[in-house]
Amino acid sequence: MVFFKNIFNGAPSNGTSPTLVPVKVSGGLRLNSSTNGKGRSAPKSQLFFSRERDFDPYELEKLCRAVGWSRRPLRKVKKAIEHSFLVITMWEQRENYRSLIGFSRATSDHAFNATIWDVVIHPEFQGRGLGKALMQQLVKELRRADISNITLFADAHVVDFYRELGFKPDPEGIKGMFWYPHSR
Amino acid sequence: MVFFKNIFNGAPSNGTSPTLVPVKVSGGLRLNSSTNGKGRSAPKSQLFFSRERDFDPYELEKLCRAVGWSRRPLRKVKKAIEHSFLVITMWEQRENYRSLIGFSRATSDHAFNATIWDVVIHPEFQGRGLGKALMQQLVKELRRADISNITLFADAHVVDFYRELGFKPDPEGIKGMFWYPHSR
Repeated sequence: MVFFKNIFNGAPSNGTSPTLVPVKVSGGLRLNSSTNGKGRSAPKSQLFFSRERDFDPYELEKLCRAVGWSRRPLRKVKKAIEHSFLVITMWEQRENYRSLIGFSRATSDHAFNATIWDVVIHPEFQGRGLGKALMQQLVKELRRADISNITLFADAHVVDFYRELGFKPDPEGIKGMFWYPHSR
Repeated sequence: MVFFKNIFNGAPSNGTSPTLVPVKVSGGLRLNSSTNGKGRSAPKSQLFFSRERDFDPYELEKLCRAVGWSRRPLRKVKKAIEHSFLVITMWEQRENYRSLIGFSRATSDHAFNATIWDVVIHPEFQGRGLGKALMQQLVKELRRADISNITLFADAHVVDFYRELGFKPDPEGIKGMFWYPHSR
């Protein structure tokens, strides 16, 4: 119950950064309440970032399926989460029910380099600046950890999204490369 | 004294892969002995890969300085080595003296992705296929660990070197990107 405890008392899990952080989106978009369109208030909804990793990996697989990513063995998903340097998730909290609506993680040597993987926002929550907010939170945490070289591999259709966030493709001619078993 | 013990008895450090592996270079280049050009045999030299990490990080800094890389705080170098998924070094062993002549490491989530960093061969040992041998050893070990996505960021002048080894730049339009603090 670490998740709920921290939501409600806002207690940091360590001295440097709170575990759960309310999501703020630039431009003042109203995120933390909603109405059902019939004049009555729907249950209040709040969005939070979390750095906790003890969620059900099946939650992540549901999220990845919602955006059409291919299925991965849960055992390996769990291992990847465990061995990432940083995991930032985004949750919608509605009364006592929470659901995973965003995910991102980074591998790192804890000193110089980090590489960001698996950035995803649930389709129902896209178009509100949440992907941008998630990435800004991730970069902020990596910078706080004194990682100077923050890298990623961007699919062609999201290069401009990352460019807006301060990422440069191929700086000084540096090329991202992938190994293929039979490409000699 | 783990290093010397393993060199001389060839004992694996675990059940899967020996800690120290003699370097073999394709094309049959003679690596494991030398003469001093005056008819007398110089002390025999042998080249080994190692996965051990308990070497003096100053050895690595000397190697990096020899190729002109900028100086890095030893404390951070040590931390980066400690938190890499895999470190493969190459050593020249001459009688009781060993020296670090090659280095490479990879960060990883231990499940899906790895990223290779800091690949270097001492200038006096370049041009003999040792960089290729080092990379092949690294990729082999990553494949043995069931890592399917092996990535790196290549400076422009080494893109062809990595291409020869089976790495493709920008496959399917995927772009390597780097975050810059003030590049908005």
